[in-house]
Amino acid sequence: MAQQRRVQLSTQRPTSTVCVLGTELSLDLCGSAPKDAVAFHVQGTPGVKLYVVHETQSIKLPSSVGRWPLAAGTEVLLAMDALSKDVGDEKVRISYFGEAGGVPVGRAMLYLTCVEVSLDADISRSGAVSRTLLDKTTWTWGPEGHGAILLVNCDRDDPEAEMPDNRDAAICSYADLKDMSQMVLRTRGPRTIFTGHRLVLHVDFGDADKVGVFYGGSSTTLEEYKHVLGGSKLAYALKPSRHQEESIFYVEGLAFPDVGFSGLVAFHVTLLESPEKGSLETPIFTDTVVFRVAPWIMTPNTLAPLEVFVCSVDDNEDFVTAVGALAEKAKCPLTVCPPPQNRQDRWIQDEVEFGYVQAPHKTFPVVFDSPRDRGLKDFPVRSILGPDFGYVARQAAEAASNLDSFGNLEVSPPVTVQGKEFPLGRILIGSSFPRFGGRRMAKAVKDFLVAQQVQAPVELFSDWLHVGHVDEFLSFVPAPDRKGFRLLLASPSACYQLLKEKQEEGFGEAAMFQGLEGVPKPTIMEILANEELRKFNYYAQSCISWNRDILKRTLGLAEPDIIDIPQLFRGDATTGAEAFFPDMVNMLVLGKHLGIPKPFGPQVGGRCCLEERVRELLEPLGLTCTFIDDYFSYHLLSGEVHCGTNVRRKPFAFKWWHMVP
Amino acid sequence: MAQQRRVQLSTQRPTSTVCVLGTELSLDLCGSAPKDAVAFHVQGTPGVKLYVVHETQSIKLPSSVGRWPLAAGTEVLLAMDALSKDVGDEKVRISYFGEAGGVPVGRAMLYLTCVEVSLDADISRSGAVSRTLLDKTTWTWGPEGHGAILLVNCDRDDPEAEMPDNRDAAICSYADLKDMSQMVLRTRGPRTIFTGHRLVLHVDFGDADKVGVFYGGSSTTLEEYKHVLGGSKLAYALKPSRHQEESIFYVEGLAFPDVGFSGLVAFHVTLLESPEKGSLETPIFTDTVVFRVAPWIMTPNTLAPLEVFVCSVDDNEDFVTAVGALAEKAKCPLTVCPPPQNRQDRWIQDEVEFGYVQAPHKTFPVVFDSPRDRGLKDFPVRSILGPDFGYVARQAAEAASNLDSFGNLEVSPPVTVQGKEFPLGRILIGSSFPRFGGRRMAKAVKDFLVAQQVQAPVELFSDWLHVGHVDEFLSFVPAPDRKGFRLLLASPSACYQLLKEKQEEGFGEAAMFQGLEGVPKPTIMEILANEELRKFNYYAQSCISWNRDILKRTLGLAEPDIIDIPQLFRGDATTGAEAFFPDMVNMLVLGKHLGIPKPFGPQVGGRCCLEERVRELLEPLGLTCTFIDDYFSYHLLSGEVHCGTNVRRKPFAFKWWHMVP
Repeated sequence: MAQQRRVQLSTQRPTSTVCVLGTELSLDLCGSAPKDAVAFHVQGTPGVKLYVVHETQSIKLPSSVGRWPLAAGTEVLLAMDALSKDVGDEKVRISYFGEAGGVPVGRAMLYLTCVEVSLDADISRSGAVSRTLLDKTTWTWGPEGHGAILLVNCDRDDPEAEMPDNRDAAICSYADLKDMSQMVLRTRGPRTIFTGHRLVLHVDFGDADKVGVFYGGSSTTLEEYKHVLGGSKLAYALKPSRHQEESIFYVEGLAFPDVGFSGLVAFHVTLLESPEKGSLETPIFTDTVVFRVAPWIMTPNTLAPLEVFVCSVDDNEDFVTAVGALAEKAKCPLTVCPPPQNRQDRWIQDEVEFGYVQAPHKTFPVVFDSPRDRGLKDFPVRSILGPDFGYVARQAAEAASNLDSFGNLEVSPPVTVQGKEFPLGRILIGSSFPRFGGRRMAKAVKDFLVAQQVQAPVELFSDWLHVGHVDEFLSFVPAPDRKGFRLLLASPSACYQLLKEKQEEGFGEAAMFQGLEGVPKPTIMEILANEELRKFNYYAQSCISWNRDILKRTLGLAEPDIIDIPQLFRGDATTGAEAFFPDMVNMLVLGKHLGIPKPFGPQVGGRCCLEERVRELLEPLGLTCTFIDDYFSYHLLSGEVHCGTNVRRKPFAFKWWHMVP
Repeated sequence: MAQQRRVQLSTQRPTSTVCVLGTELSLDLCGSAPKDAVAFHVQGTPGVKLYVVHETQSIKLPSSVGRWPLAAGTEVLLAMDALSKDVGDEKVRISYFGEAGGVPVGRAMLYLTCVEVSLDADISRSGAVSRTLLDKTTWTWGPEGHGAILLVNCDRDDPEAEMPDNRDAAICSYADLKDMSQMVLRTRGPRTIFTGHRLVLHVDFGDADKVGVFYGGSSTTLEEYKHVLGGSKLAYALKPSRHQEESIFYVEGLAFPDVGFSGLVAFHVTLLESPEKGSLETPIFTDTVVFRVAPWIMTPNTLAPLEVFVCSVDDNEDFVTAVGALAEKAKCPLTVCPPPQNRQDRWIQDEVEFGYVQAPHKTFPVVFDSPRDRGLKDFPVRSILGPDFGYVARQAAEAASNLDSFGNLEVSPPVTVQGKEFPLGRILIGSSFPRFGGRRMAKAVKDFLVAQQVQAPVELFSDWLHVGHVDEFLSFVPAPDRKGFRLLLASPSACYQLLKEKQEEGFGEAAMFQGLEGVPKPTIMEILANEELRKFNYYAQSCISWNRDILKRTLGLAEPDIIDIPQLFRGDATTGAEAFFPDMVNMLVLGKHLGIPKPFGPQVGGRCCLEERVRELLEPLGLTCTFIDDYFSYHLLSGEVHCGTNVRRKPFAFKWWHMVP
């Protein structure tokens, strides 16, 4: 429905007004009618399309009816199709007739100037601003959806700067400009009309702290770009210049969707008219364009690795070498975070999560910095944040718990659950539910993840673990068949079965932890005979089974989508569960190359029976297993390979705006 | 899809577990299989329904197939239909066979106890808790929707109390209990099974500050009711008693939907199992029920009045009498707020807005106290809040502006806009848009109104007025035809037309404000000749026309749904517009009885031509017009009849949960 504006007429003097291309004017017939008038006749110049709305019918003029009764419900609407060449070059005349008919009892003249005022953005998501017939005031999801997209300008294009680009109100480089979305104001028509009108670009009060708008006028030099809207600047008045029909604004997002911010931001341009010089101006047209701030998106193990991160600390040289070798196999660059930057904090999985933001015109990675602040605290801002590498963080309101570390934040590959598609997968976080009290992820982090909308989080039960991270009992690996992946779950039950099998085969005396100095070396028989350990693992298995049920339901998995990886846990009710031997599901997945914690299982026929079993389970999927010794350097400190590494991955080929959350 | 739980088996010793009615158990076949096993046979007692899932098919047992291959994808599922009479009275036996067949190589026994654990509420919205097959974990809108409803317990059933009932953690009366929604926990099955298990009722951390839950055990005396959940209480452990199969909890809402609170709250009951005494307990079943907190709903002029409010101040005795007489005509009780309570603040429309909350079991009125805090500041809490009369308020973050007064908060009658139904109408608020800067309603109030979801607010442009309220230029009156109402708009254009008509009829010398002492008395001719006034009214008309266009678009109105009420404004760019004579649209609507500010228009033939015109416009709709003199007592203080009165109205017959926002 076209925007419609009511125009007052007068029989005393001619009225002049503007008709904005694409809108309608509704003429206030009765308001200007002379007292005795009972009918009217209306005619316009060829550039004016006229309609009489009479008894709910809309009749295009000229029609066979010459005179229309002046009834309360009768309306005259007009629209114009072509821009005026001169001010007031089209007109409409209304003649009023009394009961007697014959000579008009009064006449109202309306002089019209047709102009174009349009605020445009990349509504069709093509990567460039174009005119469109799509509704600019709404934003819709899905492959047929429309609506412009903004990026949070959270990278740091200026290497000298301390903070991300969205913390300032300046343009530091053309690269900075390229992270922003264009918004174009088109003003066409006789230029003199604009000198008598005002055009104001504005943003709603509630949205103003979420965006920044820059404008360089007709200049292209960086210095000319000014911060014109956002923060305390709610409105910016422009004078369309004589020579320029398009004004290009650059819009940056300042904040990600979150509690109380859907991500939608509306900009308006309003045309103000003053009928005479010095008189009060009134709004006569507003055009609105809505942007959505792009969500932060996580990348599952099934996406190709682009960069592997590991920390170099005092005692982990071999581990770094092993991870480096695996990265090389996977043809993926390795970034080593050196001791001055990690301050002996090796848990880089826990400090950050790598994701990305995407708009049709631009995509860049964004690191999410966890509320966990240990030695690696400053690493993300100092060393990861940079040109086209963004940064976002959330703080915990109370002291951060173990469950706030991002080993407790994973994402599944794309899934379909009872017909509902999750083309970007679902986020998995650990919590104390269905227990009560206990530890939980900070509300600020959970709320942030939910607010991104595109990877609807699932809460798992991880508080039964001493550390409490979901990556202690699950992982995903790519697979050539079925859903394109398998869910790996740590399985005490599968481990007991394996050990019993080996005992029955006569290897009961085979001992674990061979070659590890100072580590007790229990045999298969001893492990099987340890009733306390068995009871505890029954408990651990129950907790994992509870999560298996949730995962099957929320990811739409069947049993054949799940692989049980033999694993034992130890602990008690107070301390919670820890891996009894290096926790194999806590692996590094680089394409088909898996870096798995070396379990140091019982040697059967010169081979570790745990490694053998894992190979049997995973190699048929085309995966290669590299077992990495992390025993002293990570395992004994309550973490493993996954906890000690991190991976930046390729964004999804699937565009997030094509989904329907 | 039924909740499913994976159960570990053992060939060493029998396993015992609980099967909750309505859920499935998935047996971990492979985990307990002896090394050489390649096939299995499964059989159960008659109370157990068994299924083998083999190669994606689900086969009910017993079947013609006796033995099933022990493949990775093969599952055994079981369900039970009837409660157990004794613990472990049903069983399942799995026999494993080797390649050779013949004698089993191992056997696993599972002893089962079927119990019922169910958390129920009034999911079907019938007014009472009942068992249901509807999904309790989701909440859906619409006539076919389901999901339980909570009221914010914001009334004050104890007359002695200072604060509303939801500010305490106590039950003060049975009336207090009746405002709450029931939530019933059913536990059936052999009672001894519950002594070996724990049942815990819990609420998510993020929801805990939005609700309070009370429990009286088997007692019905008020003193026994304890606050068991909500606030810092996240979980409540219960021991189902030997004699009681139903535990009734009473749930109250503490907060209305708002930014960051959708209104949905989930409660869970979790059954915890410890396989042996003293061993760690694991969750084996969770039932969840979701409630939505009922929104606060406004009532339009088309709903029947139940109570009229007016303030008695030093100089308005006649006004109070006139309003009282109108209320009597409308058969509606009058409540006069006396001077000690209003402290000479007569603007009761601005201080509060009356609305209501509704659940299937209970409905009561709720007064919304505006951030405007003048003489009437304490009146809502002191005198309106009471038994079954709730209270809600929002504070402005900055100093409240004129636009925060609730004369700037109205609601339309039910409308349909391009096919989209608004069966409870749409809220109308005034703002400075499409101007910029200027005054606006406090974000906290606007956010609250939006968050209620059921009366999607529309922003109008009211900042052009000196006071700045939407009730200065619009009102709604009931009508027997069309959409059931008319929108009345103040119209300078209609007023000029009327005056010109009267001048042309020879009444140019007729003067306004007859009988008003000390007030200048301009004639029709003088008014028509005042060019400054005409210009200003052209501006006022443009502003109202802008709103007319928005109202047509957002309420789906056509021209015949709108009536132009003659009105003039005066003022300038700095002060904004004020009514030139008493503002007739600022009326009190009590059913068919309208209390209209007496305009003191030019006397034509012994009658006020403005009153005459308004009667001509409104009486054909079956309305009666009573013109009330508010000139000195309200008009000169920048308000009129509507500003000086308030009305509590009958709730909609339409239930809010039947709509789809």
